[in-house]
Amino acid sequence: MKKNCIVAQSGGPTVAINASLAGVIDGVIKSEKFDKIYGSVHGIQGVLKNNFLDLTDSSELFIKELTYSPAMYLGSCRFKLPDMETGIDTYEAIFKTFADMNVGAFFYIGGNDSMDTVDKLSQYAKNKGIDILIAGVPKTIDNDLVVTDHTPGFGSAAKYIATSMREMAYDTYIYDIESVLIVEIMGRDAGWLTAASALARTEFSEAPHLIYLPETNFDEQKFIADIKELLPVKKNVIVAVSEGIHDAKGNYISATSAVADKFGHAQLSGTGKYLENLVSREIGVKVRSVEINVLQRSAAHMASKTDLEEAFLLGKMAVKFVEEGNSEFMTILTRTSNSPYQYEISHSPVTHIANKAKSVPREWINEAGNDVTEEMLTYLTPLVEGEIQLNYSNGLPSYPDISHLIP
Amino acid sequence: MKKNCIVAQSGGPTVAINASLAGVIDGVIKSEKFDKIYGSVHGIQGVLKNNFLDLTDSSELFIKELTYSPAMYLGSCRFKLPDMETGIDTYEAIFKTFADMNVGAFFYIGGNDSMDTVDKLSQYAKNKGIDILIAGVPKTIDNDLVVTDHTPGFGSAAKYIATSMREMAYDTYIYDIESVLIVEIMGRDAGWLTAASALARTEFSEAPHLIYLPETNFDEQKFIADIKELLPVKKNVIVAVSEGIHDAKGNYISATSAVADKFGHAQLSGTGKYLENLVSREIGVKVRSVEINVLQRSAAHMASKTDLEEAFLLGKMAVKFVEEGNSEFMTILTRTSNSPYQYEISHSPVTHIANKAKSVPREWINEAGNDVTEEMLTYLTPLVEGEIQLNYSNGLPSYPDISHLIP
Repeated sequence: MKKNCIVAQSGGPTVAINASLAGVIDGVIKSEKFDKIYGSVHGIQGVLKNNFLDLTDSSELFIKELTYSPAMYLGSCRFKLPDMETGIDTYEAIFKTFADMNVGAFFYIGGNDSMDTVDKLSQYAKNKGIDILIAGVPKTIDNDLVVTDHTPGFGSAAKYIATSMREMAYDTYIYDIESVLIVEIMGRDAGWLTAASALARTEFSEAPHLIYLPETNFDEQKFIADIKELLPVKKNVIVAVSEGIHDAKGNYISATSAVADKFGHAQLSGTGKYLENLVSREIGVKVRSVEINVLQRSAAHMASKTDLEEAFLLGKMAVKFVEEGNSEFMTILTRTSNSPYQYEISHSPVTHIANKAKSVPREWINEAGNDVTEEMLTYLTPLVEGEIQLNYSNGLPSYPDISHLIP
Repeated sequence: MKKNCIVAQSGGPTVAINASLAGVIDGVIKSEKFDKIYGSVHGIQGVLKNNFLDLTDSSELFIKELTYSPAMYLGSCRFKLPDMETGIDTYEAIFKTFADMNVGAFFYIGGNDSMDTVDKLSQYAKNKGIDILIAGVPKTIDNDLVVTDHTPGFGSAAKYIATSMREMAYDTYIYDIESVLIVEIMGRDAGWLTAASALARTEFSEAPHLIYLPETNFDEQKFIADIKELLPVKKNVIVAVSEGIHDAKGNYISATSAVADKFGHAQLSGTGKYLENLVSREIGVKVRSVEINVLQRSAAHMASKTDLEEAFLLGKMAVKFVEEGNSEFMTILTRTSNSPYQYEISHSPVTHIANKAKSVPREWINEAGNDVTEEMLTYLTPLVEGEIQLNYSNGLPSYPDISHLIP
């Protein structure tokens, strides 16, 4: 009797995480080894609550529609598995459901917190000698997973950020008066997304003129000096800042106090607004701050074709690797060439990936700490390549029916 | 000897104002009556500063590229013409330049403040018996010009707002916990753009669940009650608010104090953030606010094809109406049918349009003041129809070279 599979999504949304889901579904449907593919709704919590969708009969049309859709079709959770010593009940409940459903493989699509879940479930299965293979599929707009060259969701967010930055630059250049525009971009600890704003530059526009990442210490007086130096020359100074920039003592530069979430990460907002007030006070020039906010992770209409193709393959290949008997892994992407852009997909032990974070290398940031280098642009450029064709209805993109997530 | 034309753009940018410019250029190039078409850089100030671009040799390719581009190719200004009694020097300087350049017609693309300039220049020319025809071409994302059915730029901003609202709704529905999302949308005195967020609704998603426009008084306790009523039923409550909502006394609901600009309009920001804090304090549920900010007026990648086509025609027809000897007018659009959507372009005296504003009719807002009616959706739907094909280079939209605006 063939075994079944369960797939789930976890963590923050990206516009590529449904493409990975589509890849897993497609892989299982076409698998000789597996029978059914169930989607667990709201991540691992769907397993605990017996909340599943049977995705086995997904049509090719649905799989395609799913590939080009925002957020998470199966919903998400922010649930950190307890340690095995203190929370053994949770593990027993999960694996009892797996057994009841004749599950042979579990696929978890997520970021480094989700890979912690993959790691823990893998350890439990191994310790108990349970024959269920556990696989991770990467996603995160933050691009901060180690081992893999980059993560699905990042390229699309980068494309949206760079496009929006370019469009906002056009918006800014129109007035014949000095002004400062500060654009706050997501990225708590890693500056990859903020760095991607540099792709907005053209032969005639240097915007963003200044880029500040959390990988270097942020000095308010240096920031003011940078702007004062550029204003008379450039007239309009456009700045990209990560939400997670901090001073030399590690204190976040933010208008609002930081509150920790369940994983101990500070929840930030207001960095741009804080700097807007600072510029207004210290320089007295026209200044505006824009926080791109959740738009950068949900704008499926501006997805990178390269990103979605990779996300799909990372999901589909996870099924192949599991069919070959592998477990405790995350699928990864290794770049083999920049020009032409080429990559290989393989897998790597999840225990080396979970709970770790990849920062921007210091040498990809200029010495002054207010720009990125050419190497960064070489790295970024292929990831935003390619445009997708969405279906539009009444002038708006039509996305899959997610009524199972809506009361 | 044939006369020449000058065209300029003024006020806040939209993604359709370059389409109107393209229409004027195309009209003059193909005109039997006029010779050259000059672009005045930075609105009417370009005339005062002798800052012109000769656009007469624009290629068809350039005119097409211009049609699909963000912001204002000729730059803008926020310059209010003085009254004729006190500022006669300004008028004399403008008309001296017009005479020096053998100008027969002046085209000004802008909103209600810009139409004030068209009106004043028209009056001056008439009073002095000067044979220069003055024409206005409408634009404003706010859709608040009177007489015309709607304004170029509005449909594209509406399409972007509704698309982003739909994508943010997908982003919000993924968690199995109660939450509130508040989206702040531009619109100081008119709620048209905020109303357009209602286009995001689908058969399975009612987001935005609540819509508050500045045409009704905003009551904070009623707002909290609205959310408290919906939360247990809908789980995720998504709210669209105009930046310009105000209480019964006319005080803006805003976290920051209002500062008046040169035209006496209050410059607002922080309405969403203020309501976020209010919900957090009064209900204690997970809440986030998003200010779409300048993205909604600069996102040329999500322009409405209908909007750009109309914008182009309103520019092109302005040339035709001037050729017929008309002056002191703004081109207008009259809707003749909703289904199929049909309209006619004509012109109307600018003196009836300048400095006036069109609000959302009270009967297009529901009685509770927290939603729009079916009539509003019927009005809005055709305006966001149709997608454009942009040229992409290295994964990003390529827009015209605006190095003449950049030092």
